[in-house]
Amino acid sequence: MIGVGIIGLGTVGRGTYNILKQYGHVIQRKTGVDVRVVKIAEVDPERSKGLETDGIAIVRDAWDLINDPRVDICVELVGGTGAAYDYVAGALKAGKWVVTANKALLAEKGDALFALADREGGEIGFEASVAGAIPVIRAIRDGLIGNRIEYILGILNGTSNYILTKMSEEGLPFNQALREAQELGFAEQDPALDISGVDAAHKLCVLVRLAFGVPITMQEIVTRGVSSIEPTDIEFAKEFGYKIKLLAIAKEQGDSIEARVEPTMIPVRHPMSTVGGVFNAVYVVGDHAGPSLYYGKGAGADPTGSAVVSDIVDMAVRKAAKCARRGLAAGDSSKRIKKGDESVTRFYVRVKAQDQPGVLSKISGILGEHGISIAAVIQKGRTENAYVPIVMLTYEASEGSLKQAIEKIDRLSFIGGPSVHMRIEEGDL
Amino acid sequence: MIGVGIIGLGTVGRGTYNILKQYGHVIQRKTGVDVRVVKIAEVDPERSKGLETDGIAIVRDAWDLINDPRVDICVELVGGTGAAYDYVAGALKAGKWVVTANKALLAEKGDALFALADREGGEIGFEASVAGAIPVIRAIRDGLIGNRIEYILGILNGTSNYILTKMSEEGLPFNQALREAQELGFAEQDPALDISGVDAAHKLCVLVRLAFGVPITMQEIVTRGVSSIEPTDIEFAKEFGYKIKLLAIAKEQGDSIEARVEPTMIPVRHPMSTVGGVFNAVYVVGDHAGPSLYYGKGAGADPTGSAVVSDIVDMAVRKAAKCARRGLAAGDSSKRIKKGDESVTRFYVRVKAQDQPGVLSKISGILGEHGISIAAVIQKGRTENAYVPIVMLTYEASEGSLKQAIEKIDRLSFIGGPSVHMRIEEGDL
Repeated sequence: MIGVGIIGLGTVGRGTYNILKQYGHVIQRKTGVDVRVVKIAEVDPERSKGLETDGIAIVRDAWDLINDPRVDICVELVGGTGAAYDYVAGALKAGKWVVTANKALLAEKGDALFALADREGGEIGFEASVAGAIPVIRAIRDGLIGNRIEYILGILNGTSNYILTKMSEEGLPFNQALREAQELGFAEQDPALDISGVDAAHKLCVLVRLAFGVPITMQEIVTRGVSSIEPTDIEFAKEFGYKIKLLAIAKEQGDSIEARVEPTMIPVRHPMSTVGGVFNAVYVVGDHAGPSLYYGKGAGADPTGSAVVSDIVDMAVRKAAKCARRGLAAGDSSKRIKKGDESVTRFYVRVKAQDQPGVLSKISGILGEHGISIAAVIQKGRTENAYVPIVMLTYEASEGSLKQAIEKIDRLSFIGGPSVHMRIEEGDL
Repeated sequence: MIGVGIIGLGTVGRGTYNILKQYGHVIQRKTGVDVRVVKIAEVDPERSKGLETDGIAIVRDAWDLINDPRVDICVELVGGTGAAYDYVAGALKAGKWVVTANKALLAEKGDALFALADREGGEIGFEASVAGAIPVIRAIRDGLIGNRIEYILGILNGTSNYILTKMSEEGLPFNQALREAQELGFAEQDPALDISGVDAAHKLCVLVRLAFGVPITMQEIVTRGVSSIEPTDIEFAKEFGYKIKLLAIAKEQGDSIEARVEPTMIPVRHPMSTVGGVFNAVYVVGDHAGPSLYYGKGAGADPTGSAVVSDIVDMAVRKAAKCARRGLAAGDSSKRIKKGDESVTRFYVRVKAQDQPGVLSKISGILGEHGISIAAVIQKGRTENAYVPIVMLTYEASEGSLKQAIEKIDRLSFIGGPSVHMRIEEGDL
């Protein structure tokens, strides 16, 4: 028998407990291993109300669980990077293997924890930390092991994607779409972590370490959220055949890795553009497998619990046979993470300019001085001297040069406010 | 060191060999296991030409390889169900573990082979047998282990999907789309296995056994191919908001499992409708994870080789630790496979009728007698007494009743040829 201890009885903790209770016998028949929850730790007695525990002890002190010799696998579902770090590190030192859904912890302190796991001969399972129910960690780690991963695109935050889908399909402004998401429970009352892109960046950190074998910090990921997107940009994107998504992007380029989370235009014919509502998806290009895409529910008690259970079972089978998997500590790559302004890509640029002769020539002149060529232009409305949007798609340019050019453009006398720019990702290499 | 023997040096055999040669050192670093090809068996000396074997022996006789004590894992890439069966069974009896991409073998003789593997304490890896590079076997087996699988939709044959995509996007008739596919190398000179739906049914057999735990034979899968699809039906489907795909469908319904491969209409808003060209995709609904979708390349040396390598590595790690995975022999379900005519679904029906008063009333009367209600009708053209198509979408009906009704309708004096009917799959439960 492999004993499981669950620390934290929130939504995912309850989901995990219930799935193991419901399907423990099926799992035993399929794998030959009897996996059972033997202890639960939760400080808030309210949270265990109504849970049918069949006599399993619910303790208040997580260390009681961590030090219990019957517990082989500790499931950390506390969240945050404080106590959760102590629990995970303590459990590994006590010889336990650990399963966690905590992307913030892995993003901030993953290097230390994976190294500790390797030293202790233990493991950390983290399928649930990225894209909830979608088994994308094992797809990359195991399914694509015969590949060098070249490119990853992720829609990793359901709240942002729900808001963008509403804005795109119903023409709502950002604030109204956010309010609707909150009313429907798709966004927290404090949505900062989701809409700022930080939650998606946490997940991208985990994916980059797994897929590219490089250590990476949150500070190295260019991170922009969805709150600055305006309906007008969504409309212009449509005219050019693109959708705007909050994309997490990682790609190998020479001796460096580019890693970013930001509103990005992607062609409507690309499968990632069709991922709507609260769904998550990850698009991975391997050198042998080519592109593959993984799509499903990114959050919720049952979907995330399903991912936690998959890690528990995977571990239980190998723990029963005493064969630990190597962790992510053996990051071997000499590649560095690119700085944001080095990024070279095509851009969407929207300028608010007075409608006068010579305006476009002036703007394109400044872009040209910075080595940026224009691939397409749309100019809407024709009202002498009024401010109208001029929208341009550029050829490939570095973001640094573009920012310099825009700084100059925005100082021109006929410009009526700060210009907007957005990355275009064609979605193939 | 874990020794690998490859039987069959066709496209996939070469792909597998080259990937292991290229990434063996990376795999060793990531997993701690040294996996190496130690022998290759191939009867045709032409096929090993130009392969850099670094001194690895290429033998003509597969049994030489199977009986070589250095070979721990036998990779069967011969194809067919004759010699391939003997090799796989022989290898298992010799204590080897086996990796295969052979869906026909697993569909026809999987029950015997999985039972043999369990008796011998061995394993059969078959990630490459379904949907090429897409790691969907491990997604269902491991990633969704905390779920009861309720529903599977698959686009499992790239040739058929390429032909349908061409017909749909360019309005080509079937024969011309097939010819183009052949010219581009996306269809074999003898395309029967692909366009008849049999190849997809082989793969569905494997998925049903894995996901539902029931033994199933090819005879129990209703199988129809794409050759009967006419451009006019693709056009009508569009008008109603559907696309036509060759879908493999398996769903649990009470005490039985429905399993079919046939041209099916699916809503354009469903993610499976956007899978174009030679791509494959599998859509899986689990009771806890909800829906998830896996998309990628279904065939080719590198994509399929990538899947074969993922199985080899997975096995090598566990073989090194002597911990075999349970096979599919322990099919536990008491469910039976549904007979084709029991299937209850909505249908698309196209009737060719003379344009006379009372025609629709007669047709709907016959449908009504068989308990079938009409949800929508389109009648095109208005030319007295000429034959025009009448297209109907029905509410849920059993296929048996519909066939009886159509038999009666087709005997009516004003009907100008056999009526067409097609399943509609809404894509959710």
